[in-house]
Amino acid sequence: MPGEFEIIEWIRSKVASCNAGFVQLGIGDDCSVINQPNDKRKWLITTDMLLDGRHFQLQSGLHSPEQVGRKAMGVNISDIAAMAGTPVAAFVSVALPKSNTKEIAQLLTEGIKAEAEKFDIVLAGGDTNVWDGPLVINITLIGLEPLGGAVLRSGAIPGDCIFVSGPLGGSYPSGRHMKPTPRIKLAQDLKSRLGDKLHAMIDISDGLAGDLRHILKESNGVGANLITNQIPIHPDIQFHVSENTAHMDQEVAIEHALCDGEDFELCFCVAPDSVTNLPNGLFHVGHITTEPGIRLVGSDGVAKPWTRGGFDHIGHD
Amino acid sequence: MPGEFEIIEWIRSKVASCNAGFVQLGIGDDCSVINQPNDKRKWLITTDMLLDGRHFQLQSGLHSPEQVGRKAMGVNISDIAAMAGTPVAAFVSVALPKSNTKEIAQLLTEGIKAEAEKFDIVLAGGDTNVWDGPLVINITLIGLEPLGGAVLRSGAIPGDCIFVSGPLGGSYPSGRHMKPTPRIKLAQDLKSRLGDKLHAMIDISDGLAGDLRHILKESNGVGANLITNQIPIHPDIQFHVSENTAHMDQEVAIEHALCDGEDFELCFCVAPDSVTNLPNGLFHVGHITTEPGIRLVGSDGVAKPWTRGGFDHIGHD
Repeated sequence: MPGEFEIIEWIRSKVASCNAGFVQLGIGDDCSVINQPNDKRKWLITTDMLLDGRHFQLQSGLHSPEQVGRKAMGVNISDIAAMAGTPVAAFVSVALPKSNTKEIAQLLTEGIKAEAEKFDIVLAGGDTNVWDGPLVINITLIGLEPLGGAVLRSGAIPGDCIFVSGPLGGSYPSGRHMKPTPRIKLAQDLKSRLGDKLHAMIDISDGLAGDLRHILKESNGVGANLITNQIPIHPDIQFHVSENTAHMDQEVAIEHALCDGEDFELCFCVAPDSVTNLPNGLFHVGHITTEPGIRLVGSDGVAKPWTRGGFDHIGHD
Repeated sequence: MPGEFEIIEWIRSKVASCNAGFVQLGIGDDCSVINQPNDKRKWLITTDMLLDGRHFQLQSGLHSPEQVGRKAMGVNISDIAAMAGTPVAAFVSVALPKSNTKEIAQLLTEGIKAEAEKFDIVLAGGDTNVWDGPLVINITLIGLEPLGGAVLRSGAIPGDCIFVSGPLGGSYPSGRHMKPTPRIKLAQDLKSRLGDKLHAMIDISDGLAGDLRHILKESNGVGANLITNQIPIHPDIQFHVSENTAHMDQEVAIEHALCDGEDFELCFCVAPDSVTNLPNGLFHVGHITTEPGIRLVGSDGVAKPWTRGGFDHIGHD
């Protein structure tokens, strides 16, 4: 087993100069030093821990360390997207398994780097450990809020139109959950087009039902009507179909779209008079209501309460 | 097993209001939002991951979750102390074991809170998970640099006097490593007394030899002479003495003081003309030299190279 110092040195050598942009001092001291922006924008900070056997399957051989690195960066970037922010610098803590330590460290770093470079994120600090347990990775990502302020979960009001940025469901069985595509550009575009009319936003990690519930709760306990046949269902839900059941009925498909989670699409609420300013390719799935709770509105116009989803899944802040 | 959402809600309910000071928005959205200071001071960011069986012993029953919480905060605060900064807000990720989940979560949170309150630190975000593995905790701590700028590792120059803030060694076998006392006040006092004459500083997590080596490396490859009988030896090194060897000779004691690690005292280098401005109670252990490497100078005045310590221990950035 190579020493931790050796692995840390290797990681450092692979990480581009940290004296870049906002990062005045990166890896190699007790803390990193971050410059202030000139334009009074605030810092956004998010943190996510990913665990082998839980958020990825390394020991079982299903996923590679490189995929794990990409996902760990991706889920954090997705949180910055949910505020319409710009990611800036990442702090990566890892607990590496004792076997194949160096190979895992190298591939993991490659995956982290590849995803970071897509979004011009600097690797600005971290903590590297080796232990008897399975791979654990925690990334803390800082970013800048957009001009005009971050889009919070708490701004939805009755009458708002609810949108999602892409089809939902089947992310886990298809393996799509390992390759999140954080909607940074879309979120920034929405904020710049809509300004204060973009009332609330979240990224869908717990499933649309669960994450919409976060918005409803934080927005003074408003509710939502979702229009069943407007919910975009991802073709990946086919991975839920067993050989014995060639066909999946609509109700089961909707359940997967609402509850599967790890889609990493955006769900957002906009003032109805600003819908015409939206870019193409978005899905208008329902409306915010005064009445609490979530209801599904079928093609018969009847609204039925939907209580599933969003409890005891994955705890993302 | 209680659901993660339930545990997250419980933690939230225990955490004081986050709309305090620099934290505009805390737990409960995709990211936390951090205000900028008015005085152009920069943010310091550090992150440390602690692992059961490695940095603490929870499964074996040696340590309580409350102790783990205190240590996890303490080691991060110590990193802010090493830059003479002021800790501000913490982001706590945990992987909780499946058994006794709620009890562990509660005690862990109590420990984190107790240590945070000592230093007016806000718990501003996090990520809570439950898994099959042992307890893992990662804390990312942000703080503000002192007026005049952070004290880095890289500023030591030949002729500087090297000091440590307390006696060293025996931290692990005595259990003292679970109760770090971050030297925030001392570090701030040093910075305010000495200003730019405080050339370099680090907190001692890898042992004096290992951490001093970090300073030497980052400071253009300078070296150090340590004066053997000036190195303060902690009485806790007695915990290394087995029943068969009632007596520990000086050489072994020095080795423990230099290499044991997890003392969380400060090691710092000051210009010789500013030594008279130092507060009482500090230990002058040696001098920075042009010649690279560390040497121990005995009472006979002979300098012998010291090559042990600081490799393959714990990787703190």
